[in-house]
Amino acid sequence: MSRIEPRTLKGFRDYLPQAMIPRERIMETARRVYRSFGYAPIDTPALEYLEILTGKGSDETDKQLYRFQDHGGRDVGLRFDLTVPLARFVAQHSAELGLPFKRYHLATVWRGENTQRGRYREFMQCDFDTIGTTGVASDIETVLVVGELLRQIGLEQFTIRINHRGVLNGLLEKAGLAEQSTAVLRSLDKLAKIGREATLAEIQRTAGATTAQSEQVLALVDVTGDSAAMLTQLATITAGSERGAAGVARLAEVIRAVEQTPGMAGRVQLDVSIARGLDYYTGLVLETTLGELPGIGSIASGGRYDNLASLYTTQELPGIGASLGLDRLLSALEELGRIPAVSTPAEVFLPYFAADKLSDYLRVASQLRAAGFGVEFYPEPRKLGAQLKYADKRGFRAAVIIGADEFAAGQCQLKNLSDGGSQTLTLEADAASLVAALRELVKKT
Amino acid sequence: MSRIEPRTLKGFRDYLPQAMIPRERIMETARRVYRSFGYAPIDTPALEYLEILTGKGSDETDKQLYRFQDHGGRDVGLRFDLTVPLARFVAQHSAELGLPFKRYHLATVWRGENTQRGRYREFMQCDFDTIGTTGVASDIETVLVVGELLRQIGLEQFTIRINHRGVLNGLLEKAGLAEQSTAVLRSLDKLAKIGREATLAEIQRTAGATTAQSEQVLALVDVTGDSAAMLTQLATITAGSERGAAGVARLAEVIRAVEQTPGMAGRVQLDVSIARGLDYYTGLVLETTLGELPGIGSIASGGRYDNLASLYTTQELPGIGASLGLDRLLSALEELGRIPAVSTPAEVFLPYFAADKLSDYLRVASQLRAAGFGVEFYPEPRKLGAQLKYADKRGFRAAVIIGADEFAAGQCQLKNLSDGGSQTLTLEADAASLVAALRELVKKT
Repeated sequence: MSRIEPRTLKGFRDYLPQAMIPRERIMETARRVYRSFGYAPIDTPALEYLEILTGKGSDETDKQLYRFQDHGGRDVGLRFDLTVPLARFVAQHSAELGLPFKRYHLATVWRGENTQRGRYREFMQCDFDTIGTTGVASDIETVLVVGELLRQIGLEQFTIRINHRGVLNGLLEKAGLAEQSTAVLRSLDKLAKIGREATLAEIQRTAGATTAQSEQVLALVDVTGDSAAMLTQLATITAGSERGAAGVARLAEVIRAVEQTPGMAGRVQLDVSIARGLDYYTGLVLETTLGELPGIGSIASGGRYDNLASLYTTQELPGIGASLGLDRLLSALEELGRIPAVSTPAEVFLPYFAADKLSDYLRVASQLRAAGFGVEFYPEPRKLGAQLKYADKRGFRAAVIIGADEFAAGQCQLKNLSDGGSQTLTLEADAASLVAALRELVKKT
Repeated sequence: MSRIEPRTLKGFRDYLPQAMIPRERIMETARRVYRSFGYAPIDTPALEYLEILTGKGSDETDKQLYRFQDHGGRDVGLRFDLTVPLARFVAQHSAELGLPFKRYHLATVWRGENTQRGRYREFMQCDFDTIGTTGVASDIETVLVVGELLRQIGLEQFTIRINHRGVLNGLLEKAGLAEQSTAVLRSLDKLAKIGREATLAEIQRTAGATTAQSEQVLALVDVTGDSAAMLTQLATITAGSERGAAGVARLAEVIRAVEQTPGMAGRVQLDVSIARGLDYYTGLVLETTLGELPGIGSIASGGRYDNLASLYTTQELPGIGASLGLDRLLSALEELGRIPAVSTPAEVFLPYFAADKLSDYLRVASQLRAAGFGVEFYPEPRKLGAQLKYADKRGFRAAVIIGADEFAAGQCQLKNLSDGGSQTLTLEADAASLVAALRELVKKT
């Protein structure tokens, strides 16, 4: 028989247990935190009518779309993000959903990206959004969700950087450059790379601005100090623009509320350099950086938009949402040495070597599971050494060793696989001593 | 602007919160139970090389495959099950994975089915498998996992029906019909519908069997009584066939071990009518039915196979696995009235109506979340009545009502949204009374 080479497509990944265990743990943490704020889960099909997907996308996403004709000759495509499906979903089910509508959606998306850039063609997005309100409470909550999520993942040194598109737009308005916002933003984005003078020149060239106009815009990047000081400066440079003033006021309100929330003091920072996409966001925008890994970029980002689903409905749907960057976060945890080299989700390994004691082993395994432990029972009676090697390679924390002699004596050995230490315990009918000792061991390691 | 009609493809489903909340809960339960037995999570790409997918599939799955050419001109397809990807995965990573290898995989699969038959074109599979062992312990464990999963989902009246392909094959061998097994099985499958005489005739016609041969095979369906009685009869009718005797012995061992496991007595039943597919399974096979809904069919099924990945590797990989039928299980829970009409994952609703008390509300919300409750805070100050209507529609269990007067008096009202009852509580700085009262309320409702 001719065999087929087992391989995956370029840009696609298999997740082996060691990678999948922390990945799944983070996804479960995200779901739990989203739920705790009242965001409800939804799911949508991976395949959509092509017109749904190409309606909103940019030329770039259109080009990257996996598209084909289905068995019925319909033009279909694989979703490339979760925002377009959300817009379609809310437009389609608005009567049933009601507003405000808070949802989270963890799902796979596909983009035929150039893998040379280190991009994947299949990845998971972890979005949450509040649709149908412009209230400041939903802005605040979005920041709080990101903060709570990172804390529950076990990250403590993070900063949620926020800005408001109204501030920038107000400033452009004041400078008479409102129509040139795209060109100005593109130039401002290069500031760090090309420096102040070149940026000024570029604004003048690409936006047709005068020297005074470009200086007026660049005043934004001179805003410094702590949040309070920055807010004062922003108020000054946007003075006279209603939109700018509203943006500054909202930033102040968000910062104040977040600072007052237990565990969130010092977690939020005003950052005038954040714009996040040229067209989509209209209000608060946020990015999140890690103090220990400043270079890795934002691990959670989002912002407020005026109208989610204008392509599919006349109903105006403002909202705000953010997304956890799962791949980037996992890279960060890896780099910080926070991903244990473990390929089992169970703590306890139960070797099987007294061949005729199967039901006794199964009873012990079942008792330990009932006490809350994950227990892997080796499926065949083999030499103990080989089984312990197996357990060691997979990263179990404890092995419960019971041979024929131990069963006869009503005993077992509990081996700490991290430090090699072991203790002999009484094995009662209800395994109470073993359960107690395991609780101690798992707590310590 | 011309709008695009928001719609989904035929055979594809949107999951609104009310459907997605129980769905996600069951998936999380499945993951938790699988993990507690030491099964590790993996994931594989939705898209595979077409040759990987068409290698093993039947003509029917080949026809249903969503296939296309990707941007690089490669022939690719969307996976139609999780078994083919598992085989490819184990063959590709066998050195790193080691054996035995226990994995679970919850993921979406796609089939261009005829939707007239009530089938979906996109659905979730929830598989777990143990690869690389023929040990009876892995057979027993597979049954135990199914049992524990259903118990943790809250189903008590279920029966795991088991059979062994060796018994059937041994009987065919003895009758001299080993080569005609497919034809015989097809005829046996019709027994309930066409009756004994017609089945006998059909076996003779399609398998070219004599009357004596067909009677010998049909002896199988006369096996009745409790498991012990059936095992004795099976031993008699398969006597002389090594394969048959081994199958009977294994069934006996599995039944004994499962019966002895706490909570599993009476849950497993020998059922000689179960065959589960003609080619794939070779040993133990299992299906699971609900006592309250016998007509709904099996909600968890699986079996043992000799060689998982022969298409991709010369390594022999025996194994056993089973799969939870998520859609069917959810239909069953729905029919049993076990799916609450709830579209929020949070228990507690916190209305916002004292407009200038935002940070006080946020503090209370944060305290309740820290105490373990899911809390939705309404994002805009509106009339209380409208907000309570919103809460009612979504199915929150409790509302914590605090207006300006209550804040001033250091009080709050806790409203039980199930029975309309309400109580006035002291609102301390740490919200301790409220937390305690909520614990009581959530426990009761």
